[in-house]
Amino acid sequence: MPQERPFDLLNKMVGQKVLVRLKNNTDIRGQMVSFDVHMNVVIDNAEELEGSELKTKLGTILLRGGNILFLSPV
Amino acid sequence: MPQERPFDLLNKMVGQKVLVRLKNNTDIRGQMVSFDVHMNVVIDNAEELEGSELKTKLGTILLRGGNILFLSPV
Amino acid sequence: MPQERPFDLLNKMVGQKVLVRLKNNTDIRGQMVSFDVHMNVVIDNAEELEGSELKTKLGTILLRGGNILFLSPV
Amino acid sequence: MPQERPFDLLNKMVGQKVLVRLKNNTDIRGQMVSFDVHMNVVIDNAEELEGSELKTKLGTILLRGGNILFLSPV
Amino acid sequence: MPQERPFDLLNKMVGQKVLVRLKNNTDIRGQMVSFDVHMNVVIDNAEELEGSELKTKLGTILLRGGNILFLSPV
Amino acid sequence: MPQERPFDLLNKMVGQKVLVRLKNNTDIRGQMVSFDVHMNVVIDNAEELEGSELKTKLGTILLRGGNILFLSPV
Amino acid sequence: MPQERPFDLLNKMVGQKVLVRLKNNTDIRGQMVSFDVHMNVVIDNAEELEGSELKTKLGTILLRGGNILFLSPV
Repeated sequence: MPQERPFDLLNKMVGQKVLVRLKNNTDIRGQMVSFDVHMNVVIDNAEELEGSELKTKLGTILLRGGNILFLSPV
Repeated sequence: MPQERPFDLLNKMVGQKVLVRLKNNTDIRGQMVSFDVHMNVVIDNAEELEGSELKTKLGTILLRGGNILFLSPV
Repeated sequence: MPQERPFDLLNKMVGQKVLVRLKNNTDIRGQMVSFDVHMNVVIDNAEELEGSELKTKLGTILLRGGNILFLSPV
Repeated sequence: MPQERPFDLLNKMVGQKVLVRLKNNTDIRGQMVSFDVHMNVVIDNAEELEGSELKTKLGTILLRGGNILFLSPV
Repeated sequence: MPQERPFDLLNKMVGQKVLVRLKNNTDIRGQMVSFDVHMNVVIDNAEELEGSELKTKLGTILLRGGNILFLSPV
Repeated sequence: MPQERPFDLLNKMVGQKVLVRLKNNTDIRGQMVSFDVHMNVVIDNAEELEGSELKTKLGTILLRGGNILFLSPV
Repeated sequence: MPQERPFDLLNKMVGQKVLVRLKNNTDIRGQMVSFDVHMNVVIDNAEELEGSELKTKLGTILLRGGNILFLSPV
């Protein structure tokens, strides 16, 4: 049985609500639409959070993977 | 049916008005003309924003992908 | 007898409780689920620590390898 | 009809007056002489600007692409 | 006679006590267990130092090579 | 007629007096001896400048390309 | 006659006393033992300097090339 890999989790998060913490410590919350090998991700209904409060509604965004600290299903 | 990927969204944004947030927290707004695999993008009628206010009209710019935090159709 | 390599330690940490120190000096503690060649890791029951105190429960996270300073079995 | 790409704009800027904003927020103005795949560019009669005022005349410079935020025909 | 290379020194340090200075100026001391081509290293009985005083016992750690300033046999 | 490229300018600068501005804003002045594809350069009679004043005589230096902002014949 | 390249200077520095300035502005002085294509270098009798004064004796160190600003024979 092949071992699961981190991109398997990414695959399962498609269509789900996720939290993305960026390297600059910003939190983005929304629905993951797609990803690629660079961990670039498209997030729908993306919201920028301040603590756990909504700061800005961003709509659909394409977030570059290099800026991501971690992703988490919520 | 093949899964959509982040670059499919980039492709759909060509000719559309977009918002680009840079790593240095600057926001650029304008019309996307073209992009490449490095996510370098050409923006027409580019405007640098301060908050949501116009700060500087930049005209046509070629923005290096490595400086981008996210892109969003507006 | 082939020499052990750092990824052999990663392999042994799968399923174990680990501490991950990030470059921004944050400590994450949880159970390692999987990893890949970029040292991206999935951590279950991830907790963000402040000193050795729990700061935030993060649940399952996919942590990008490029942000990691070190990993340690605990 | 093949889609235009960002490097097509670079190609058109050869021989033209350009503004280059660097990552450290410096603006360089001058005539673009040449470029390569790394977006290294040679600028003739290069001037370093402070706001829109001339700060230093730099003559001919070879600017490393990795330091560039954006380029713009002026 | 082939010239020695830096990785030959790494090879000789396996099993020896080493000092590792990180880019963030932290010093780690312990016994080197293994390394790979990225200069990722596993350190046993790792101790984080403050000046030359013990600050924290870290046990076994896998340290990412990209964070290392230098390594030294002690 | 093939278009000139930035490395053609580098080639012409060999044996000439050059100014190199580093990313940390230091200026180095001296005679360029050689360069390679990474834009590593050897400078003879290198002088570190403070403004346009001599700060330190460095002699011959091998400067890593990754630290360079721009090079300029003087 | 083939042109000299920066690595030819590195080659000549083996066995010689060198000064290495790091990106974090630290100066290391000692005898160069070996180097590789990443400009990783081994320095014997390495001394960390503060200004031109000895700050710490480091012994033999393997210094990662990515941290180096320049190297100079002394």
